[in-house]
Amino acid sequence: MPRVRAHLLTIGDELLSGDIVDKNKAWLGRRCRALGLEVVRATTVRDRQQEIVDAIHVAAGDAQVCLVSGGLGPTTDDLTAASAAVAAGVGLVRDQGLADRLTDFFASRGRELVETNLKQADLPAGASVLDNPIGTAAGFALDVRSPDAEGALGAGAGAGPGCWLFSMPGVPRELHLMMREQVEPRLRERFELEPIPRRIYRALGSGESTVQHNVEAVLAAARERSPGLANMFVHFRARYPEVQLILEATPGQAGAGAGAGASAAELATLDEPLAQAIGPALYAIEGDAVDAGEGSGELAGLLVRKLIEEGLTLATAESCTGGGVGQTVTSVSGSSACFVGGVISYSNAVKIAQLGVPERVLEAHGAVSEPVARAMAEGVRARLGADIGVSTTGVAGPGGGTEAKPVGTVDVAVATAEGTTYKRLRLFGRRETVRYATIMWALKLIWDQLPGQSSKQTPAPAGSAPAQTAD
Amino acid sequence: MPRVRAHLLTIGDELLSGDIVDKNKAWLGRRCRALGLEVVRATTVRDRQQEIVDAIHVAAGDAQVCLVSGGLGPTTDDLTAASAAVAAGVGLVRDQGLADRLTDFFASRGRELVETNLKQADLPAGASVLDNPIGTAAGFALDVRSPDAEGALGAGAGAGPGCWLFSMPGVPRELHLMMREQVEPRLRERFELEPIPRRIYRALGSGESTVQHNVEAVLAAARERSPGLANMFVHFRARYPEVQLILEATPGQAGAGAGAGASAAELATLDEPLAQAIGPALYAIEGDAVDAGEGSGELAGLLVRKLIEEGLTLATAESCTGGGVGQTVTSVSGSSACFVGGVISYSNAVKIAQLGVPERVLEAHGAVSEPVARAMAEGVRARLGADIGVSTTGVAGPGGGTEAKPVGTVDVAVATAEGTTYKRLRLFGRRETVRYATIMWALKLIWDQLPGQSSKQTPAPAGSAPAQTAD
Repeated sequence: MPRVRAHLLTIGDELLSGDIVDKNKAWLGRRCRALGLEVVRATTVRDRQQEIVDAIHVAAGDAQVCLVSGGLGPTTDDLTAASAAVAAGVGLVRDQGLADRLTDFFASRGRELVETNLKQADLPAGASVLDNPIGTAAGFALDVRSPDAEGALGAGAGAGPGCWLFSMPGVPRELHLMMREQVEPRLRERFELEPIPRRIYRALGSGESTVQHNVEAVLAAARERSPGLANMFVHFRARYPEVQLILEATPGQAGAGAGAGASAAELATLDEPLAQAIGPALYAIEGDAVDAGEGSGELAGLLVRKLIEEGLTLATAESCTGGGVGQTVTSVSGSSACFVGGVISYSNAVKIAQLGVPERVLEAHGAVSEPVARAMAEGVRARLGADIGVSTTGVAGPGGGTEAKPVGTVDVAVATAEGTTYKRLRLFGRRETVRYATIMWALKLIWDQLPGQSSKQTPAPAGSAPAQTAD
Repeated sequence: MPRVRAHLLTIGDELLSGDIVDKNKAWLGRRCRALGLEVVRATTVRDRQQEIVDAIHVAAGDAQVCLVSGGLGPTTDDLTAASAAVAAGVGLVRDQGLADRLTDFFASRGRELVETNLKQADLPAGASVLDNPIGTAAGFALDVRSPDAEGALGAGAGAGPGCWLFSMPGVPRELHLMMREQVEPRLRERFELEPIPRRIYRALGSGESTVQHNVEAVLAAARERSPGLANMFVHFRARYPEVQLILEATPGQAGAGAGAGASAAELATLDEPLAQAIGPALYAIEGDAVDAGEGSGELAGLLVRKLIEEGLTLATAESCTGGGVGQTVTSVSGSSACFVGGVISYSNAVKIAQLGVPERVLEAHGAVSEPVARAMAEGVRARLGADIGVSTTGVAGPGGGTEAKPVGTVDVAVATAEGTTYKRLRLFGRRETVRYATIMWALKLIWDQLPGQSSKQTPAPAGSAPAQTAD
């Protein structure tokens, strides 16, 4: 079955000036993947009518679906409706239902409605309205044809005679709601969509090349087993310090042969041998994660759920991360059931007074040292009355490094009723990267101490396996 | 002087599947703005040769510069060099200097060099090498001509006969270094570039519409004063809870007349009347911020510098932010000179034991209340021995809200030697948004207490001015 091709089009000067990072593009891409649409291109243009029209025409010549975000506001630089009308060769028509809704909206807030506000009720003729229950900018769906039957950029195999354009707001929460509730049901109704099976193996504690090397034999054997597995697309993603192995049931990249894709169940048969091959660095296997957040949230979410499940409580003692471990854990809704709190012991005085780190230990070994990391974890566990105490102390940079303890030298310890585990990290990158990596390592080290973790049986000895460079 | 037009081209399946947010696009956009290049379009394509070639041809027909990131690795899905060669109508040639460097690199790390690694030394004929001192992927610069003299998408006014393509790695720190040290000097040498004057007014404590309303008269008067000011582009950006007013010396958007732009000095003459109009919500005025980070870092950076300048120390007592205030303050390098540490008092037990919040106050008023917020700020100030104590306690959601204290109800307090300031916030949005807004408000409330702040003379009374909805 040929897949439905989609273009993404994000509109706004602020996206090209870099004032805003284009998270809408990534979010739409994830939704399309979950739906089973194949996103083949994303374009960002300025708030200029002709440039928007051109981009829509390119989409119409190459894709069956074009998802647009931005340019639906009331001001003169909001040009999406007008541009879509031009692209479709139709005029703008005022939607009376929308105009009434806008009038009510302003009246209910005691604000004056001016003519420019009503501009948001002008849609291309023939468009259907996409409701926006939380904002004034309604979206619309519209069929657009390419002015050039071949498409301006070479039509793809799946390109049909027209393109279904969906125009949505740029405000993320309005976009998300409209996509989920208005656009996706329409797409599912018109097209037979089938999401691509995919499997993600998440590891922390081995570098990308190590993971790649360790799984090579398993993947080679799998490829021999069936045409579906032979065609799977293997991708390694390093989100330092995390490494992900992604298996995708497509016929793969240029060079790979065409043919049937593997089923989700077939991919899952690789879980056991891959877990063996990756070893204790592996902490999660996912079918897909379209609605999941970024990196740290993932491990934090798993950790919080596991802690609650086990009835365990956690406290943090943070130096170089300055509160980041606590913030990451509490980013998970419901974390109050397992997280009691922590101490940010940025200064030595706070390490001594609030955590009971002996002054002589600080003097003898320095703040970034195994004895201090252990004392911090044990101190916060005892003082805050938690089952588990975790500590971070290190040189995040850019200043503060020495020959013995260069920037990126970080000590992490986890204290439990059974004793204290410690790890020395040697991290690379900027301050931000070192701190993020420290947070992730701290979470992983806690994770490894929890009941039922395979890695618990093989704790990392102190000072072993310094961490890897960024991707 | 016509401005030099640029296209951005980011390459990689993971950008379209949404697995990665395209921060490189935003970063390149910011650099271009600082340089004085006009970015007119950004395109993201998959790791497919023909799709990359097509995108390069579009750029060549429309822009004088095309900045490319991604697709320079050693694997089969790294196709930028091969695609650029096809787009330019030349072959690939092995660069012996690069090949030698790769061989040395692998030898020095005791790793085996295989033929696929040497692929990174194959560049389009005629390309010049862009050094990558921190990675194996060298970049290259290449002149490309559009196959169609008119350009596939309608050539812009400034489009010349060819396009200068710069291919850089997708790894951010390698991209950043190469852009700064290799690409920008070349661009400055070939083109006469002039950055566009711009002025940013940052406010926290007023909504977008309030700021807009308050500055209207000042901007109207300014437009009467000179053709440059009449032509300035005014943009409001809401990065909840922050609002920015941006003045840009371009002839502006569609509808505005063409003509001379204002000078930086002319824009700066508006500082005083705009500061008056915006009031105590204003906390910073910037000429430009190309190298600055996102939101919280900005205010955090200002705050840390000011605290150090004043010789003041800070301690944090955090409940709903879970360490986020501490993390944000310590994201600023050098913050150890003013930040002593904090207590994450997520549970009531920690609020009582570590901060000395009286149990009866917690029982009488609940954890989210003015007396608790005050006791937390005063407690952490006293116990950690800091000049300033700041506290956050609130309902971040999605659970935990009541009718009296719905999700988004947050109390923030700042204790100093002169007394304690308190503010009740009513924030909107998801857990993540509420927590971020709380962090920003906490920083602003500290900022307002520092010597020399105009807002210090008009402290916000308790319970006043609930905060605004997201943009």
